Amino acid sequence: MTFRTVGLLIAVFVAAWMIGCTQTNQQRGSAPVVDQSQPKWAIVIHGGAGMLDRSMPADLKLRYEQGLTSALQAGRTILAAGGSSLDAVEAAVRSLEDNELFNAGRGAVLTRAGTCELDASIMDGRTLKCGAGAGLRTVRNPITFARRVMEQTPHILFTGDGAETVATQLGVERVDPGYFITPRRREQLDKRLKELGLTAAPSDDSLTRGTVGCVAIDIRGDIAAATSTGGMTAKMPGRVGDSPLIGAGCYANNATLGVSCTGTGEQFIRHVAAHDLSALVRYKGLTLEQAASVVLTERLEIDDGGLIAIDRAGNIVATTTTGCMPRAWARSDGATHLQIWDDDR
Amino acid sequence: MTFRTVGLLIAVFVAAWMIGCTQTNQQRGSAPVVDQSQPKWAIVIHGGAGMLDRSMPADLKLRYEQGLTSALQAGRTILAAGGSSLDAVEAAVRSLEDNELFNAGRGAVLTRAGTCELDASIMDGRTLKCGAGAGLRTVRNPITFARRVMEQTPHILFTGDGAETVATQLGVERVDPGYFITPRRREQLDKRLKELGLTAAPSDDSLTRGTVGCVAIDIRGDIAAATSTGGMTAKMPGRVGDSPLIGAGCYANNATLGVSCTGTGEQFIRHVAAHDLSALVRYKGLTLEQAASVVLTERLEIDDGGLIAIDRAGNIVATTTTGCMPRAWARSDGATHLQIWDDDR
Repeated sequence: MTFRTVGLLIAVFVAAWMIGCTQTNQQRGSAPVVDQSQPKWAIVIHGGAGMLDRSMPADLKLRYEQGLTSALQAGRTILAAGGSSLDAVEAAVRSLEDNELFNAGRGAVLTRAGTCELDASIMDGRTLKCGAGAGLRTVRNPITFARRVMEQTPHILFTGDGAETVATQLGVERVDPGYFITPRRREQLDKRLKELGLTAAPSDDSLTRGTVGCVAIDIRGDIAAATSTGGMTAKMPGRVGDSPLIGAGCYANNATLGVSCTGTGEQFIRHVAAHDLSALVRYKGLTLEQAASVVLTERLEIDDGGLIAIDRAGNIVATTTTGCMPRAWARSDGATHLQIWDDDR
Repeated sequence: MTFRTVGLLIAVFVAAWMIGCTQTNQQRGSAPVVDQSQPKWAIVIHGGAGMLDRSMPADLKLRYEQGLTSALQAGRTILAAGGSSLDAVEAAVRSLEDNELFNAGRGAVLTRAGTCELDASIMDGRTLKCGAGAGLRTVRNPITFARRVMEQTPHILFTGDGAETVATQLGVERVDPGYFITPRRREQLDKRLKELGLTAAPSDDSLTRGTVGCVAIDIRGDIAAATSTGGMTAKMPGRVGDSPLIGAGCYANNATLGVSCTGTGEQFIRHVAAHDLSALVRYKGLTLEQAASVVLTERLEIDDGGLIAIDRAGNIVATTTTGCMPRAWARSDGATHLQIWDDDR
């Protein structure tokens, strides 16, 4: 193992431990009301595993932190008011989709053809119902499309032209395809296309992948998970990654946990990573932290990505082997956390 | 539980027992050479769980049996000659795709729009590499498309227009979309569309679903699985079922087993059925027969469908809770089996 690999492994375990133990950080700018008599809820979000530029301007870093805080707030408000985990994860992911910094919805990365093809999935751990869309081109909030598919059709996954037709039938908000495209992503695509003609590997992971996701457990013990992405920069049109695939990039089951994954989608698909996390807890009796470590370091390769998850007891993990994953969480006991790089604090 | 449900449960256990024990049936019309000194291989195929009409003419039943025999033969010949399980499952599924009786390739069921949208996936248990296509419209053999995606692209799943472009790049054989459409499927669609306007449930399951699949283990112990389908009659265009989804309708891992599923796709997706079978064996220590029973009768609902699987020791299951699933298998020890209904013999 290289020095970097060892360092990353250590970072994963430290991050898992930090989150697993009671030592927590108070979220800046808010002082949550702590009331132990309240029923328990918890929520965790991520903005995609990757390697954001450490030398980014302070105001850009602040915008990432504000984006995470806003999305977390959208979900926690619902949970604190006794709302459902499904409503919470949809609200949080909508917030991240609407934020052009994250690779989902507006600001999603572009395909080789310069278009956006958006994927999303959502799952209800109480009923195991789920919904998803792949290759969406005009749906403003793919996660809402996924939820409507789950609740208003007998099916789970729609793709391409058929998905656009279903979007019309479901009445979800539509936008012109240009809505999703930002100058920043256009520059990234141009850079990546140039690289593809010159070198095999991209110079910066943050340009090529990323996903957003949310997992929550509400006061009734119902778990929900949601994942949304634009995929990989310069991906071949029609390519579907793990985000819209139940069991790969998203899974929720009240019997075990909810999980949302981010990283190199193909790796999460072939290892059926989201369901494997659940199976390791359910059948092998591992703790959530142990199971996350097995999936990320024994099944997947170092640098493949990360995941966020909440088990039925309300334990939270938010960990990555890439060294960087904007993430945030909050619990009904008032504990909150916000972090971008593994060695942030 | 109704009388029918109890009967189906009994049928499942009897079928699993029949296959699990040493009592086997010799395939009609062939006397395999038994040579216990040879390295072991095994292959199992299915033609889709459903409820074929028991009163079908004798010559039609014979054609189903001949179709199974031909497909099995295509795969077993490769395995007996020391070929790979990947080659075997691709050859067997191609044979079923080319046979208009089965709901895959030519003779696939039609969408609501009167078109064919074909899905397939393949997985290599040695490397966990996999490939898949969804919503294919002009690829003659979707399983070959899936294999080329696995071997010649860095991705796993392509859908829709993008998949057609990739098919061109991969050089797979193409056909006019009309090639897939048979008069029988056209009649089924017309009937189903009429029913959709009149009643909520179809009168005959065989009209609405079906899949083909193959699992094999070769003399090196490498396991492969393949699944291919046209989906459900009168499905909404763009709907993707479990067949092209790794972990749902198809999974292979040398550490555990290979499996191909068939039935109500959405149920197999939300239960991540193929990977769950593997996880029950790997993490809970169940036998293949026990795991198949858990997946089909405890996770899924009775009548949802069936599965075929081979574990790393060469044990075979081919079982369904629908009472009917054309299936056949063969082993290097000369044992063979062919069956359509659970109470066939």
